[in-house]
Amino acid sequence: MTNPTPEEVAGSLSVEQKAGLTSGADFWTTKEAPGVPSIMLTDGPHGVRKQDEASDHLGLAGSVPATCFPPAVALGSSFDEGLLVRVGTALGEEARAEGVGVLLGPGVNIKRSPLCGRNFEYLSEDPLLSGVLGAALVNGLQSQGVGGSLKHFAANNQETDRMRVSADIDERPLREIYLRGFQRVVQDAQPWTVMCSYNRINGTYASQDPWLLTTVLRGEWGFKGLVVSDWGAVVDRVASLSAGLDLEMPSSSGRTDAELVAAVAAGELDESVLNTAASRVVAMVQKAVAGADSSATYDVEAHKTLARDAAAASVVLLKNDGVLPLALSASVAVVGHVAQDPRYQGAGSSQINPTRLENALAEIRSLTGTDVPFAAGYGEDGESTAEQKAEAVAAASAAETVLLFLGVPASQESEGFDREHLELPAAQLELLEVVLGANPRTVVILSNGGVVRLSGFADRVPAIIEGWLLGQAGGGAIAQVLYGVVNPSGRLAETIPVRLEDTAAFGNFPGEHGHVRYGEGLMVGYRWYDSRNMEVSFPFGHGLSYTTFEYSDASAVANDAGITVALTLTNTGARAGAEVVQVYTGLAASAVSRAKRELKAFNKVHLAAGESRTVEVSVRREDLAYWDTRVSGWTVEGGSYTVEVGASSRDIRAAVSADVTGDVIRVPLTVDSSIGEVMAHPVAGPIITAAMSGGETSLLADPSILKMLASAPIGRMMGFPGSGVEPEQLEQLLAAANAS
Amino acid sequence: MTNPTPEEVAGSLSVEQKAGLTSGADFWTTKEAPGVPSIMLTDGPHGVRKQDEASDHLGLAGSVPATCFPPAVALGSSFDEGLLVRVGTALGEEARAEGVGVLLGPGVNIKRSPLCGRNFEYLSEDPLLSGVLGAALVNGLQSQGVGGSLKHFAANNQETDRMRVSADIDERPLREIYLRGFQRVVQDAQPWTVMCSYNRINGTYASQDPWLLTTVLRGEWGFKGLVVSDWGAVVDRVASLSAGLDLEMPSSSGRTDAELVAAVAAGELDESVLNTAASRVVAMVQKAVAGADSSATYDVEAHKTLARDAAAASVVLLKNDGVLPLALSASVAVVGHVAQDPRYQGAGSSQINPTRLENALAEIRSLTGTDVPFAAGYGEDGESTAEQKAEAVAAASAAETVLLFLGVPASQESEGFDREHLELPAAQLELLEVVLGANPRTVVILSNGGVVRLSGFADRVPAIIEGWLLGQAGGGAIAQVLYGVVNPSGRLAETIPVRLEDTAAFGNFPGEHGHVRYGEGLMVGYRWYDSRNMEVSFPFGHGLSYTTFEYSDASAVANDAGITVALTLTNTGARAGAEVVQVYTGLAASAVSRAKRELKAFNKVHLAAGESRTVEVSVRREDLAYWDTRVSGWTVEGGSYTVEVGASSRDIRAAVSADVTGDVIRVPLTVDSSIGEVMAHPVAGPIITAAMSGGETSLLADPSILKMLASAPIGRMMGFPGSGVEPEQLEQLLAAANAS
Repeated sequence: MTNPTPEEVAGSLSVEQKAGLTSGADFWTTKEAPGVPSIMLTDGPHGVRKQDEASDHLGLAGSVPATCFPPAVALGSSFDEGLLVRVGTALGEEARAEGVGVLLGPGVNIKRSPLCGRNFEYLSEDPLLSGVLGAALVNGLQSQGVGGSLKHFAANNQETDRMRVSADIDERPLREIYLRGFQRVVQDAQPWTVMCSYNRINGTYASQDPWLLTTVLRGEWGFKGLVVSDWGAVVDRVASLSAGLDLEMPSSSGRTDAELVAAVAAGELDESVLNTAASRVVAMVQKAVAGADSSATYDVEAHKTLARDAAAASVVLLKNDGVLPLALSASVAVVGHVAQDPRYQGAGSSQINPTRLENALAEIRSLTGTDVPFAAGYGEDGESTAEQKAEAVAAASAAETVLLFLGVPASQESEGFDREHLELPAAQLELLEVVLGANPRTVVILSNGGVVRLSGFADRVPAIIEGWLLGQAGGGAIAQVLYGVVNPSGRLAETIPVRLEDTAAFGNFPGEHGHVRYGEGLMVGYRWYDSRNMEVSFPFGHGLSYTTFEYSDASAVANDAGITVALTLTNTGARAGAEVVQVYTGLAASAVSRAKRELKAFNKVHLAAGESRTVEVSVRREDLAYWDTRVSGWTVEGGSYTVEVGASSRDIRAAVSADVTGDVIRVPLTVDSSIGEVMAHPVAGPIITAAMSGGETSLLADPSILKMLASAPIGRMMGFPGSGVEPEQLEQLLAAANAS
Repeated sequence: MTNPTPEEVAGSLSVEQKAGLTSGADFWTTKEAPGVPSIMLTDGPHGVRKQDEASDHLGLAGSVPATCFPPAVALGSSFDEGLLVRVGTALGEEARAEGVGVLLGPGVNIKRSPLCGRNFEYLSEDPLLSGVLGAALVNGLQSQGVGGSLKHFAANNQETDRMRVSADIDERPLREIYLRGFQRVVQDAQPWTVMCSYNRINGTYASQDPWLLTTVLRGEWGFKGLVVSDWGAVVDRVASLSAGLDLEMPSSSGRTDAELVAAVAAGELDESVLNTAASRVVAMVQKAVAGADSSATYDVEAHKTLARDAAAASVVLLKNDGVLPLALSASVAVVGHVAQDPRYQGAGSSQINPTRLENALAEIRSLTGTDVPFAAGYGEDGESTAEQKAEAVAAASAAETVLLFLGVPASQESEGFDREHLELPAAQLELLEVVLGANPRTVVILSNGGVVRLSGFADRVPAIIEGWLLGQAGGGAIAQVLYGVVNPSGRLAETIPVRLEDTAAFGNFPGEHGHVRYGEGLMVGYRWYDSRNMEVSFPFGHGLSYTTFEYSDASAVANDAGITVALTLTNTGARAGAEVVQVYTGLAASAVSRAKRELKAFNKVHLAAGESRTVEVSVRREDLAYWDTRVSGWTVEGGSYTVEVGASSRDIRAAVSADVTGDVIRVPLTVDSSIGEVMAHPVAGPIITAAMSGGETSLLADPSILKMLASAPIGRMMGFPGSGVEPEQLEQLLAAANAS
């Protein structure tokens, strides 16, 4: 006997049962129905946050222990698709062991502004990187029979007024920047669920936007799964269900279920729409049931190791004048509260209760086998007393090298609100100055979920390690990088700007009175800084290694699938290491606005010391397309594309070109076509020139006058007195040209 | 017997006659009707461009001689309200003498990008300056019984695709930047006519936008005159008339008149709408007839003098290390084609046939009484031959001081298309280098309608004069400034940026596929550079004098009318001169996005050497208001405003503060109000806190959790399971709070 299909199960239920099935039973579980068990969904892109027993009203209380992998801010910096698959797989194992059917992640929202309070939960300022890594995580997770929930769909790029604000975005940036990563994950990984966001997009709540949830997500992208609301995102349940939102979470205690039942009874909601949503819930539950294994466990120790490997692969060595790596015997002092009491994840719904929590100080002592001196320098609140400063100076003075741990306090970075500035706490910066005064050989190690301004001191310290929030094993990972046990290979997934005022969204973030205008359009992150030739502190894609790499023999060949880029990469140093080969494209002679360069492919390559290898990187043809508002579709513009191969967006090692054949787009001529457009037409051009030569339009024979009038719609110019062309003649001419 | 009213005249006409009356008879005149003579409208914000005899089809052929006053780019730099009244008055005299009833100007569009090809016809990047000077010109013009035509209404800030492109602008920048200058002119000068622009605004053609032409222009601003189309701006005559466009120009040869008649007959257009438009045409004609004087003449010589005085007052001395002013006996060489063949106005519809055309070379020779050596250096096309360069170097080497005239070729600046870059011609820049190599004492004099990039050489020349396009007497004006006959007093009405990539609209200009997004919002011109703390070459409001001014005793007092600013201004040098005292305000603690500083008042003050005077500058209260999207109205936000008094936006001489009482805006609490908004309410806050303390919402007592949840709409949070507050309770509570 075969199991009944989701449609069969849903079809056997009453309207009340179907309505019930499409909202939660409580905070974390779905309702039971005949033939449909309840399943659990839990938070946590970087770990399983399963709350003990009864959940609290707000879903914010404690949870069972789980491996706290690095949050997205760190994983994004790994630029490592394989790593994300491994982390996803481990998350799936833990979720399955905890009886969790769907894990709520990954988050692939774009880091539009470094001020977004939830940037630590997102991967990058670039949609391709977000999409590739997001798909990898989902594929790993779902390989274990546990569903992903791609979130927050869409344009949830700030926390300020997040449950009401309308993200007002033009169609090209919406498509090319803010939806592109979601599209990639849907098409490459088919997550079981997509989670709609709280906010509105161009005035319509994402939770009830049929264009977003049905036309684009299912119609254009082919999404097969279920759409779940972010917790509390439903404003109008009937509108949401009609738009394509299948499951409201958390429970509304039956209130909105009754609204659905009433709407069906009143003929305002077609029952077939409810059937579809209920069927999708059943299908999700069936997948979760099929994937469940009540005897499943996971290897806690192996996951601790993976958490550490992932953290180490995500650390970005921003600057190093040679002071790093340290010898195990080096004379060092550790300064900074976060070295002992680490910041390792962000506040809000994603907080994991880790299976083990490492701190850098202990890990350094353990690795070196010495009781390295330590001074806190400042307290948990980021404030520094005179005594703490004096202790720090004493420790710094006595050591050959200072390891100064600075960070953004947890109170400044959280789901629910945005940051107000990019500064490290003033007390920490003062501490930095006195420590640096005591010992210029001071390595700065940062702990932060969003980027901080480094331009105040970056040129005065010998080395900077960007340690992000690295999850439970960040302490060990940092120790490994400092002492060269691991050769750092992280790359910036977001630009570190010189100043807040340099950022693209400055003045347009976070909006006011319920609206935020994405005025910078396509120019987000490095697209902004590079197109405007602005100075940055550290560019997108940047990250140093303890070895060096040489690029040679770069080539690019366009073909039907896109562009195949090949090069020879050589590890020219004395250590094994990994390089992230980045491929950017540009089209200077484009007919539309474009960023100077856009990341179109990347490849993290591990090479032994001295090893040389041919590396091939493929750019998909669809990634060359822009959203063409003339035809409301993706169009690949033909032309000679610049293909840049580099170690960052500002460290281009080779630039070649590829001749791409464009899609053929024919826009018919009309009376609204400009004189210039008509003149440029191979058939209409000569005829109209001849037709106009009789009247006073012969003025158009003067090139300077033609240039002045080229943008005028031909129908209106021909309407002028004495034009010598009758409207009927013009219509016939244009029809003939269009038929040619 | 009294004359019949416009309504009576229109009421006596047939539908056909009324339809005919609301479009032109030909290119430049209105139709006759019983009791309604024809009148002429002609181009020319800076002169009367009355075309001889039959006009050509495109209205671009020659015209009768008239005084060519400085175009708006220059007049804007005068910062001189009184001067604009005088120029307007002179224009009125000339128009009346030529039998012209309405002169098509001034243009008060904002210089959004320096690339706009028609920037020479606009006054400033700032709406207050545009509005004040535009109103002055209209008041002068109309004092002579000749009507003005305020144009191009609205948001016509580029030439690219100008007849189709939609300027997509959010309401605040539309109101505060792009409409504000028009509002000022309408309210302070009541121009007889307003000319609608070609473009669309947020998707709707300005020529048929009832919101723009009726709701805002007449309803909110109290405009009493007639709306005329830009020539060829009508797309749908019936829609235009219905929206409030009264007069289509030029003639449609009866085609669109017939459309109106048919629409009235079909009941699609209420005849009363046609009556209103026809009455407005009659009213305009009656005013023109009343103002007409067939025996009128004007004092050609006096106008030549005024044209020169206006030009001299508009020259901006950008830089001067002391080389200027020159002694009449100084050894100089003049280099540069435009010194002899001046660029003095822009191309397109505004070209005047001047009564006399001065060139700087002849005027310098005349003023000094010597045959000053001259080398063209480059030709009319901007190209420079080796021989021309050699001649220039020889002349430069032989002189003590070089006067190097550079400029943008006329072919690059015109109505009808935009510039593609900010560069002076490469050949001229090469010439500059060789001349500078031969003689470092090289003064650069610029002729240009839009700003050019100066950052390539500004720090290497001793003096730079920004000579814009100065009208027919620019040559004499420049000679007078160079030799100190006139002490320069022009100030930049637009910022000169370091690079094109620094400009606010970069990447968003000129749009594509029929749309341009004004993504920079409010941050236009100096608002952008100052708010982002960017380096500029020369800031808004900048301009040097041959004397110096000291500001002291600055004070600011807020009152019901606005803010009264007072200061003592002293001419501390040895020459008479004029200073432009500029008042900027800011409100750092604003609840809405604001520029760091905004020009709110200015005053050009002439002082004898050593003279000291108390200067009072009044900021109108309405100019402190922002467009409040919550209430769709102007709101003055209360608070301590920074009042900066300066000689430019980057040369603030005194900063004081003024405590402004805000308008009272009460937005009622609803279930969509955020928890933070409710908590902040004096009545609702304490009650809701108490109400929630029972359930699990007691978590809100934790300040960090409250901060995280403060932006959540209270209605949705209370819908969560276990909230402890019923929807009905909440509604009652909010109602009580609103009633308090």
